[in-house]
Amino acid sequence: MSINKILNNIDEVLLMGPGPSSIHPSVYEAMSQSTLGHMDPYFIKIMDETKAYLQSILQTENHLTLPISGTGSAGMETCFVNLIEPDDPVLILINGVFGKRMEDLAGRLGASVDVLEFEWGTPVDVDRAQEQLKQREYKILAVVHAETSTGVRNPVPEIAELVRDKDTLYLVDTVTSLGGIEIATDTWGVDALYSGSQKCLSCPPGVAPATFSDKAGESIANRKNKVPNWYLDMNMLTSYWEGQSRVYHHTAPINMLYALNQALYLIMEEGLENVFHRHLENHKLLVTGLERMGIRMLVEPECRLPMLNSIHLPEGVDDAEGRRRLRQEFKIEIGAGLGPLAGKIWRIGLMGHTARPENVERILAALEEILP
Amino acid sequence: MSINKILNNIDEVLLMGPGPSSIHPSVYEAMSQSTLGHMDPYFIKIMDETKAYLQSILQTENHLTLPISGTGSAGMETCFVNLIEPDDPVLILINGVFGKRMEDLAGRLGASVDVLEFEWGTPVDVDRAQEQLKQREYKILAVVHAETSTGVRNPVPEIAELVRDKDTLYLVDTVTSLGGIEIATDTWGVDALYSGSQKCLSCPPGVAPATFSDKAGESIANRKNKVPNWYLDMNMLTSYWEGQSRVYHHTAPINMLYALNQALYLIMEEGLENVFHRHLENHKLLVTGLERMGIRMLVEPECRLPMLNSIHLPEGVDDAEGRRRLRQEFKIEIGAGLGPLAGKIWRIGLMGHTARPENVERILAALEEILP
Repeated sequence: MSINKILNNIDEVLLMGPGPSSIHPSVYEAMSQSTLGHMDPYFIKIMDETKAYLQSILQTENHLTLPISGTGSAGMETCFVNLIEPDDPVLILINGVFGKRMEDLAGRLGASVDVLEFEWGTPVDVDRAQEQLKQREYKILAVVHAETSTGVRNPVPEIAELVRDKDTLYLVDTVTSLGGIEIATDTWGVDALYSGSQKCLSCPPGVAPATFSDKAGESIANRKNKVPNWYLDMNMLTSYWEGQSRVYHHTAPINMLYALNQALYLIMEEGLENVFHRHLENHKLLVTGLERMGIRMLVEPECRLPMLNSIHLPEGVDDAEGRRRLRQEFKIEIGAGLGPLAGKIWRIGLMGHTARPENVERILAALEEILP
Repeated sequence: MSINKILNNIDEVLLMGPGPSSIHPSVYEAMSQSTLGHMDPYFIKIMDETKAYLQSILQTENHLTLPISGTGSAGMETCFVNLIEPDDPVLILINGVFGKRMEDLAGRLGASVDVLEFEWGTPVDVDRAQEQLKQREYKILAVVHAETSTGVRNPVPEIAELVRDKDTLYLVDTVTSLGGIEIATDTWGVDALYSGSQKCLSCPPGVAPATFSDKAGESIANRKNKVPNWYLDMNMLTSYWEGQSRVYHHTAPINMLYALNQALYLIMEEGLENVFHRHLENHKLLVTGLERMGIRMLVEPECRLPMLNSIHLPEGVDDAEGRRRLRQEFKIEIGAGLGPLAGKIWRIGLMGHTARPENVERILAALEEILP
């Protein structure tokens, strides 16, 4: 018995959207190694190695560093649900879909949420954040590092300085930034962050790296109430991911963790600096090619993300039809605009294994074909 | 670049524990097909086909039928967090770890929880449940179908009759039962259930099938408050899994869903009745062999699960050392006892692809070797 018809006819698509990104063949191979039990001693070795890789790539010594058993949004859920108790004051800096999502989630958990909103396509303004932080004592300050909906890099290290000497916990969404640009968790003073596997790590979606500082860990340990989420309770997850004798919590997504291990290994082998450099160089190549065609970038150069390039929809091109042609005729996926940018922009991803010159050439050639 | 050293040295272990179970080669092959985007039209076809398979195997016409993006416990979290609002009265029938887990979770969500507890290794008593249901109006009645911690099959259809004409929602954990014994969701009148991929479906862990009746769906639609969990909010998940134009929620675990699709396809090809029969026949073969060796079963024959066989620890065998030898010398994983049964029982799984005569012979031969 081999794979069924529908699965046998999956196209090999070049994934140049906002994630998932294209996968290195060895990651597929890793994922299809024999499933082990979730308490198997050898699997625990793989967990430990994966954790050490994550610590390196996140530049952290946090012992509370682990992949959450869900996609990036489960990482977000984990950070907020463990840190928030009802009525906790939370400040969220918003300039895109993923900041709005934080607001929605924190509200659901009963936090007292304040937000500062900034125009989509521009970065969060550090001065306005500083002003707001003088008005109220916040338990959590949250921001998105790489706003996937626009392609803006927010000034995460500069914002960190605003709360360095405060009790406030600094929570950062690094879903799209991890593995593409630097994240100096400890140096910057980030207290909690989450990411996804399917962006610059180039692993299929399904696991969400996360880390918590000791300060965040103490906040979790000193909660007045149990975490209102059994699946994502860090106290129990820690007992499974740490120590001499592991305590069964839930069945980890074994094969997804094999894939993550291999994806992280590839980054370690290439070297973090080289990986960042490759993202930047391919971004430059793409921008040069786009500008030569007269296509305009949404975001100003100083805060552009290398791995997520938003372009104004070229004149005379229909949004849906253009993307449909790229997918059907050229086997390339790019992303549509979201929210107020729907129908106005396209998002071209250069994440992880996708960030290679031959892919840049391929998308440029395809765009050339579909321009009127 | 090929897979790294630690992944290259994974043993092929016969998984005869409480899950994960051994995987059919075509499921590994399915999982490593090219990743598509989560909004790709072809991927949406795969989602639709997967949903139709789940409806068949769950014997339901519920349109709210989908795999949740997490392991079985995320399925549990989904059912409870969508249905419970603070102070809702919930009755949980408990006879093992997974019933206790429901109690913990419902309490975290602010429900007013009553429990009836029964001796581990025996089934839930229908009469006592009936008595309790006369004492109070419950919003939810919850029970585990196949108690993985003991090997007991609870009388799910009989319990269903107790709430058939009531407003009470009937919520069932089918993590270990799905794909191994019958689940007649609609006929029985189950309003919400969750399962896992890594038991009798023989897919790696990482996705959790779930279904909700129209009655449960209305309860979710009429909530006073938003679901206090962004990741698992059925309202948003439904917009991604249903209708003509799908709304992006989170990035689905694409390759895990390929694997699930193939695993369900294998069951459909074999035929549901044949699959149940195979589980039962292999269970009988195992029990006969065990009894011949003088090994005693924990559970009485009339409520034994075919896919999870708890045995009293054979006399003269050390729990940890015995399991270590099975894993190291025979490359077989079995499960330890949990809670009050720790050190007293072993759990032998015959789930999905594991439930074959050659595997029964292999574990019997290995046990023979390690008996004193």
